[in-house]
Amino acid sequence: MKIQELDTPVLLVDADAFERNVARMAKLCLDAGVACRPHAKAHKSPEVARIQMEAGAVGLCCAKLGEAEVLAAAGIEDLHITTPVVGASKIMRLTAAARQARISVVADDADNISDLAAGAQTAGLRLDVLVEVDVGQGRCGVPPGPRAAELARLVDGHDWLRFRGLQAYHGRIQMTGNVDERRAGAAEALEKAERSARLVREAGLDVDVLTGGGTGTSAIDAAAGGLTELQPGSYIFMDTNYSAIEWEGAPAPPFENALTVLAGVLSRPAADRAILDSGMKAISGDGGAPRAIEYAEAEFRFAGDEHGELAFPGEAPLGVGDKVTLLPSHCDTTVNLHDRFIVTRGDEVEAVWEIAARGRSQ
Amino acid sequence: MKIQELDTPVLLVDADAFERNVARMAKLCLDAGVACRPHAKAHKSPEVARIQMEAGAVGLCCAKLGEAEVLAAAGIEDLHITTPVVGASKIMRLTAAARQARISVVADDADNISDLAAGAQTAGLRLDVLVEVDVGQGRCGVPPGPRAAELARLVDGHDWLRFRGLQAYHGRIQMTGNVDERRAGAAEALEKAERSARLVREAGLDVDVLTGGGTGTSAIDAAAGGLTELQPGSYIFMDTNYSAIEWEGAPAPPFENALTVLAGVLSRPAADRAILDSGMKAISGDGGAPRAIEYAEAEFRFAGDEHGELAFPGEAPLGVGDKVTLLPSHCDTTVNLHDRFIVTRGDEVEAVWEIAARGRSQ
Repeated sequence: MKIQELDTPVLLVDADAFERNVARMAKLCLDAGVACRPHAKAHKSPEVARIQMEAGAVGLCCAKLGEAEVLAAAGIEDLHITTPVVGASKIMRLTAAARQARISVVADDADNISDLAAGAQTAGLRLDVLVEVDVGQGRCGVPPGPRAAELARLVDGHDWLRFRGLQAYHGRIQMTGNVDERRAGAAEALEKAERSARLVREAGLDVDVLTGGGTGTSAIDAAAGGLTELQPGSYIFMDTNYSAIEWEGAPAPPFENALTVLAGVLSRPAADRAILDSGMKAISGDGGAPRAIEYAEAEFRFAGDEHGELAFPGEAPLGVGDKVTLLPSHCDTTVNLHDRFIVTRGDEVEAVWEIAARGRSQ
Repeated sequence: MKIQELDTPVLLVDADAFERNVARMAKLCLDAGVACRPHAKAHKSPEVARIQMEAGAVGLCCAKLGEAEVLAAAGIEDLHITTPVVGASKIMRLTAAARQARISVVADDADNISDLAAGAQTAGLRLDVLVEVDVGQGRCGVPPGPRAAELARLVDGHDWLRFRGLQAYHGRIQMTGNVDERRAGAAEALEKAERSARLVREAGLDVDVLTGGGTGTSAIDAAAGGLTELQPGSYIFMDTNYSAIEWEGAPAPPFENALTVLAGVLSRPAADRAILDSGMKAISGDGGAPRAIEYAEAEFRFAGDEHGELAFPGEAPLGVGDKVTLLPSHCDTTVNLHDRFIVTRGDEVEAVWEIAARGRSQ
């Protein structure tokens, strides 16, 4: 089947670009001697996770327990949940998933750590816990410093928990445009992470894992050392925002745009405008408007939940039924709108990958 | 089960408010002698469609063929697709769905009308077609005036198509805050619709259906007469944006907020901030930030795809594991992120309704 025969809107993955992205991140981590644990929040797909594991990933990150449940059921054997799992019901689900895969989870709260211990004991299994340190993200996590060591000791004090290390993720700097500023931000985050790790070690505990980083700082973090494990997500797909930042030592981004939405023209109400069948329910707008790959001169405007408008400076070279390839501004939230990836090579459809954890926000 | 026992984030429908909204719109249409054809794009749920039909709706609107396929398969017998169905593949799907339900579709393009006729002939069934007139939306549709009559005659000239009337939807004025401006906009749209209908009738054709309107202009359109059928969608759920506009003859909106997202507190990193487990993948941001119902003084800020931050002017009265009810700014795009509605009455869970057409954007 040819791409042009697909009903629209449809989410496409360019297999060649995707495979190069997977290989490049794998090599970057291998060369630096750092573990690669890609973030599944970007794809929510067991098929993509399997490809990342085959390329050498030590496991996957999940933003939500629901994602981990899907990947564990699909046979991915090593998972790390990067957001606290809170409450008795979710902790029961967590221990159930931990029978299918090795799962670690972050914590930043003493009561939550007690709840995790109680849940693990009830389930009769040992849970791996990392303490989250806020190294600049300003979201979850304890402040860098002694509090990390206190919580690490608390984890270590529970028979049913195993302290594994620290999570030090700084998402805010991943898309900092200027590479020197990004490098400075990453260095500052690393200093906070290492200072916290030192205090944990001084308290007599091993810090086997220091996990963090993302697509934007991947080369910087790999070169700096310090982190034992990187958590990049978007590198497999990229988007207009990630592609636009300045990249370390290269004129072009080291990762290629591999994710697009194929849209169809529904109407040509005026000479300079085409109405597309893709609006906010087919391609996300939180990162700005998407870009029409074939028509650099055209401007995409959201025209409601189900429509987009493609405005041209002159006559629009498009008729009803024509198709347009849109490049998302934000890959993660676009993926979360779709149930499957249609994987293409050249102009042929090669495979369908289910986005099995789409919507698993619990 | 109690609401507070649910894992979060979770999409809730308050059954009492929802039922009052359904009844009020049904009465508004009945009293005015106008048909009620609620728009399924707002809920994408066969269960909600059934309740609307039981309340007297003549059928449902669908924005996409994919929604119509789901509702037809679920036994909803009368469907109108408010967006052109373009291309041989989709027209084949349309005729297949038209074996399960009575389906009408809009068109604004001569070639598309020929394609619909060819598809109907191939399938051996007759398709109902409405010509779409652009009465101000600036999206799909022919300009008001003679072009509508030309296309109506074109439809009528095909043995396998049945011309049913005109669609005249003006979405842009639905949320115009000032009720006088909204009324003026609705009057202008109606004038364009009626002028187009007159030209169609002068060409010798019946205009049985003149369909349009939305939640914001529902009372205005019903009072004005002219439209034979209203297409309101959001009235069943409402949201912060719709609730904020000025409403005809009433200090309060005639419809109540019935849709919320229950979020959980993941972390309390500072005295005046709580981090919630609900970000852009659980509640849409295209209409602005949601509002925390229990904490009017707090400001919700998106903190990424999976997190929200609730910032308080003073100490945040929330602990890890506490729950917060968020009111969406835009109901349609929030619904499209979830797989099911959890229907509640008081503080009890009463039912689960599948959002079976979620993501059906083709």
